[in-house]
Amino acid sequence: MPTKATNGEMTKIKIAILGGSGYTAVELIKLLLRHPSVEIAAVTSRQEDVPLVADLHPSLTGRIDLRCEPFDADRLVARGVQCAFGCLPHGASMATLPALLQRGLRVIDLSADYRLRDPNTYAQWYGESHEDLAHLAQAVYGLPEIYGDEIATAQLIANPGCYPQTAILGLAPLLAGKIVEPRGLIVDSKSGVSGAGRTPKLTYHFPECNENVSAYAVGKHRHTPEIEQTLSDVAGEQVEVIFTPHLIPMDRGILSTIYATPLRLVSEPELLELFRAYYVDAPFVRVVDRLPATKDCAGTNFLDVTARVVRGRIVVIACEDNLVRGASGVAVQNFNRMYGFDERSGLL
Amino acid sequence: MPTKATNGEMTKIKIAILGGSGYTAVELIKLLLRHPSVEIAAVTSRQEDVPLVADLHPSLTGRIDLRCEPFDADRLVARGVQCAFGCLPHGASMATLPALLQRGLRVIDLSADYRLRDPNTYAQWYGESHEDLAHLAQAVYGLPEIYGDEIATAQLIANPGCYPQTAILGLAPLLAGKIVEPRGLIVDSKSGVSGAGRTPKLTYHFPECNENVSAYAVGKHRHTPEIEQTLSDVAGEQVEVIFTPHLIPMDRGILSTIYATPLRLVSEPELLELFRAYYVDAPFVRVVDRLPATKDCAGTNFLDVTARVVRGRIVVIACEDNLVRGASGVAVQNFNRMYGFDERSGLL
Amino acid sequence: MPTKATNGEMTKIKIAILGGSGYTAVELIKLLLRHPSVEIAAVTSRQEDVPLVADLHPSLTGRIDLRCEPFDADRLVARGVQCAFGCLPHGASMATLPALLQRGLRVIDLSADYRLRDPNTYAQWYGESHEDLAHLAQAVYGLPEIYGDEIATAQLIANPGCYPQTAILGLAPLLAGKIVEPRGLIVDSKSGVSGAGRTPKLTYHFPECNENVSAYAVGKHRHTPEIEQTLSDVAGEQVEVIFTPHLIPMDRGILSTIYATPLRLVSEPELLELFRAYYVDAPFVRVVDRLPATKDCAGTNFLDVTARVVRGRIVVIACEDNLVRGASGVAVQNFNRMYGFDERSGLL
Amino acid sequence: MPTKATNGEMTKIKIAILGGSGYTAVELIKLLLRHPSVEIAAVTSRQEDVPLVADLHPSLTGRIDLRCEPFDADRLVARGVQCAFGCLPHGASMATLPALLQRGLRVIDLSADYRLRDPNTYAQWYGESHEDLAHLAQAVYGLPEIYGDEIATAQLIANPGCYPQTAILGLAPLLAGKIVEPRGLIVDSKSGVSGAGRTPKLTYHFPECNENVSAYAVGKHRHTPEIEQTLSDVAGEQVEVIFTPHLIPMDRGILSTIYATPLRLVSEPELLELFRAYYVDAPFVRVVDRLPATKDCAGTNFLDVTARVVRGRIVVIACEDNLVRGASGVAVQNFNRMYGFDERSGLL
Repeated sequence: MPTKATNGEMTKIKIAILGGSGYTAVELIKLLLRHPSVEIAAVTSRQEDVPLVADLHPSLTGRIDLRCEPFDADRLVARGVQCAFGCLPHGASMATLPALLQRGLRVIDLSADYRLRDPNTYAQWYGESHEDLAHLAQAVYGLPEIYGDEIATAQLIANPGCYPQTAILGLAPLLAGKIVEPRGLIVDSKSGVSGAGRTPKLTYHFPECNENVSAYAVGKHRHTPEIEQTLSDVAGEQVEVIFTPHLIPMDRGILSTIYATPLRLVSEPELLELFRAYYVDAPFVRVVDRLPATKDCAGTNFLDVTARVVRGRIVVIACEDNLVRGASGVAVQNFNRMYGFDERSGLL
Repeated sequence: MPTKATNGEMTKIKIAILGGSGYTAVELIKLLLRHPSVEIAAVTSRQEDVPLVADLHPSLTGRIDLRCEPFDADRLVARGVQCAFGCLPHGASMATLPALLQRGLRVIDLSADYRLRDPNTYAQWYGESHEDLAHLAQAVYGLPEIYGDEIATAQLIANPGCYPQTAILGLAPLLAGKIVEPRGLIVDSKSGVSGAGRTPKLTYHFPECNENVSAYAVGKHRHTPEIEQTLSDVAGEQVEVIFTPHLIPMDRGILSTIYATPLRLVSEPELLELFRAYYVDAPFVRVVDRLPATKDCAGTNFLDVTARVVRGRIVVIACEDNLVRGASGVAVQNFNRMYGFDERSGLL
Repeated sequence: MPTKATNGEMTKIKIAILGGSGYTAVELIKLLLRHPSVEIAAVTSRQEDVPLVADLHPSLTGRIDLRCEPFDADRLVARGVQCAFGCLPHGASMATLPALLQRGLRVIDLSADYRLRDPNTYAQWYGESHEDLAHLAQAVYGLPEIYGDEIATAQLIANPGCYPQTAILGLAPLLAGKIVEPRGLIVDSKSGVSGAGRTPKLTYHFPECNENVSAYAVGKHRHTPEIEQTLSDVAGEQVEVIFTPHLIPMDRGILSTIYATPLRLVSEPELLELFRAYYVDAPFVRVVDRLPATKDCAGTNFLDVTARVVRGRIVVIACEDNLVRGASGVAVQNFNRMYGFDERSGLL
Repeated sequence: MPTKATNGEMTKIKIAILGGSGYTAVELIKLLLRHPSVEIAAVTSRQEDVPLVADLHPSLTGRIDLRCEPFDADRLVARGVQCAFGCLPHGASMATLPALLQRGLRVIDLSADYRLRDPNTYAQWYGESHEDLAHLAQAVYGLPEIYGDEIATAQLIANPGCYPQTAILGLAPLLAGKIVEPRGLIVDSKSGVSGAGRTPKLTYHFPECNENVSAYAVGKHRHTPEIEQTLSDVAGEQVEVIFTPHLIPMDRGILSTIYATPLRLVSEPELLELFRAYYVDAPFVRVVDRLPATKDCAGTNFLDVTARVVRGRIVVIACEDNLVRGASGVAVQNFNRMYGFDERSGLL
């Protein structure tokens, strides 16, 4: 619950953003600047010679006056920071966040470090062993539509990956309702390039990825176990997906086309009704009759989803803005649940 | 065989292009201008007040001097035209081409009118009955890697659709080799916008489809029966696909990601070997180890394909330039086979 | 001044949007949904069979429940609408708005109908005579940084064009300061495609304008007299510009590169200081040291501007989001001034 | 003159490409593979572990079998290489090419190293002193429409920059004809991103430059002296330009909008006639009535140009494909002139 100051105005929650140079950080800053109950108290960055946050992100000129600072847990505590959003790369995240967690801060980690419950799975997919098993055990996977209650009371949120949200929310009603086979699920995803982060590489060099589409990491993408872990929770049994991500020449947006084999005859109206019932309390999931398009949720926290029956198979299409709903927006949604604000605060 | 003139130089085949205003026509003109054994003798168009072909397509300025002319079968014959490339919309094609076929011309039809052998299937998917059953019965589906011999002697070629080529050539080795189940095949395709033609519509208005990805015609795309007809020929049994096309914000290129269930254990090297053997004589199919990208075949007649095994499923990825390999390039490849030229003539 | 209700809460101003089907309308709706003191009471549209506003713009699904309605001035009055935003095409605007103005509503017209004071100039550039001279005489050109005081009390605002804002705000400090020659000013502008509106035409068909840049309407663009009228006000003498717009393959953004001949020696620091002083009270003009980029103001109401001296010439670069700052955002800024709200309300 | 072998067939000229990893190299390879009188004998690269040229450029798979090799002048001579195309960065070029020139090879250098006759100008704009003054003195600037005769007999061609060609060919008729003032010429250029090369940098990272337009290097771009040197030759007096390049979110294409002050009254038809007369023998300059667009010359060696009169100023618009006409295509055009082939050989 937000605490009220004696003058009747709400005291704002002071937050810090760790790792301010990437796309999720700048998106988060823009969202939080609009949030009525948040004060951005600090933005940390390992980049030197960048005094102002607005030097990292020219779009923030005139909108935020903060200077970047090196990470210092005690200093954040001294400044009254209650909650930190981690925008660090995986690995760096689990090396940094314990210092804050031990000091009692609540943390929303946008990296992958605390998403996979089983450290062996982490080691297998990320190629290094997990170094913070204590906090891993307490972390809550921050998908509000699935784990809303645990999120409210969590100290550490493992903010979900961009792809997994479309796959999970696209399949959850079907698996919860025992409508489809839990194995052999095919998730064919298409993502804009911002999902790859802000570090220049040949693959994301404009003349290489513009006017181009390709699959990548076929059968090897690290979001696979994350999808399966959550869907197995939902299904109550082991779920297995074949996940194929593709790179699309656009800034933002993920659209996943999902193929599932029904266990019984099911009609499209029945499917849509099932989805609507499942998400009746979810303000950011829009079950639509039309075929959704990424542009319709660009810049928003909405995830749009529909379902079709094609030759006896179920085809689900789910899309989102990968930086908002897929990362920073759902982080704010989690923050709202953690602090008792309206789930939509700062997000409409 | 190309006929040689007495002076030792090759006589060029005079061709006509019917319906010169669209993207396949301009692509065809560019390819044929480079073909050493072709003379473009006529370009027809129903557009009025467009004297020059280069007025329809400014990129052709200074490259072709022809004036557009209304379609007139006798005039084409009188001018010595031996072969016509039909770039008309479906429906218009079957209303126009019989006049040429009856006069003995050979025709490569880029529309869908002669692709489906069964007129009932045509009626079902195109919503109108077929009006030229006589020629439909003789038409050869112009996919050189599958029907190369029939193409050589055909009078009427039904040039294949853009999507079907990726689906068919991506699955043919597996179905011919009885490696995969012939039903429940999933073809998830991503196409650039030029595939939708040159008629302005809101869906293809730049600010609508730029920065956007969406599925369309789910379960209803007219290329479905075309894929199944050819793959059933290859498999020797009825094949069924779930085909989902997507619109991608780029000019050109189709990439299809294909999911098949193997009938027996198979390894990636074995799959790649199978593909290489199947296409050993196909100069325009490149079986690659890497994950192919549409940009690598942009502007060419190559179709790139690879295969992977993911959790027991086979994932095939095939891509092409939808206007060249997907339409006008393969039309020239067919032309080369029909007239005994090197299959690659004008295409490298 | 916003009126306060007895319960201490602010009464919201009821507004109507006329002509809801285009890009400026949907942008306006998104901005106004976020405005704390606005209630969107009506959206009119001439399109039939479109019951819901969200059917026109799928991105609004779940965000606005209004049904489209035909324009009816009395009905709007009866419903308590105080202010209308006109998103109609020019011509339609001056045929529609008088009915509202006569009933005492305040109007912000996003069309060009009331921008040019001289009806002869209107007739010359728009090819038809002006049909509402009475209101034309009272209209205030809605560029807040230039006509802020008149805007506050105006009944009818002629919301400025997208290009003119970059040209005017890029040159105003120089002309006000008598720094540059008022004639022979060159404005070379680059615009994203959304500036052309939502009606499909071949020029804006994705495969035509993607991967393409071209100039258009050279020497003939209708924004020319609008630029000159306002700059002549600022300069106190007749100003003349050579204006060349270009179409750029992107959704949003205008960047104008402006060339002026200085009347005396001037340094870059002096220029930047001049700009900063001129815009000291303008919350949405950011005078930057760096070369600005359209992406840095995308989705915002900011106009970024800088100046350079190159071989004795002054080069000014100004950019904005053409749909927000260039149209709907500045409309809200005008609205805020008209009703005494913080100029930034709903815009940050 | 091409030498004929005794069997009546033309002996092909063996060429080498130095620095095979960039965009100009791959474009050159594609053009030369189509050239009937060229054999690509070697491609050098400093990149290690890249055995095949097709590994550098997947689009070349199946089209060229060469392995990359380190640069070795003697080895190239021993292999019969007669002509080398330098695709090295500036600096590296003047360190590498002398070894070939001394061995009698002819060289077409696509870098900037031999473009500026005055080594002081080079030092001033490139920040390092020129290290090969001997060959600099003999180099011919490879713009065929201006220096066609010298090119034919040159040993060393300094292939022109991409921007300069549009500026020079857009202004040459006006300056040669003494139609415009030679100073204060404004060249406002818009370029696709491939012009920046293939090295990944944040500026060219897809999510940074997509949906974005900005000016860069205002008043400082190194192509400025190159433009002025050639135009001064044409004018017979010192020419001065204000050159402003812009980055456009597309792969290919440069469009320059050029503003000049006429010395006398001149009409548009007169201007177009002047241009047509000036380029009457230039097969790759298309003087067009319409406003040209980069897409119309994409992938070709054409440079399209038109002229307008706006309020007493002359506005010239010139465009090209920056990789073909702007680099590799004009290099082949130069090659054709050097070896007596049809100027268009391999380029249509």
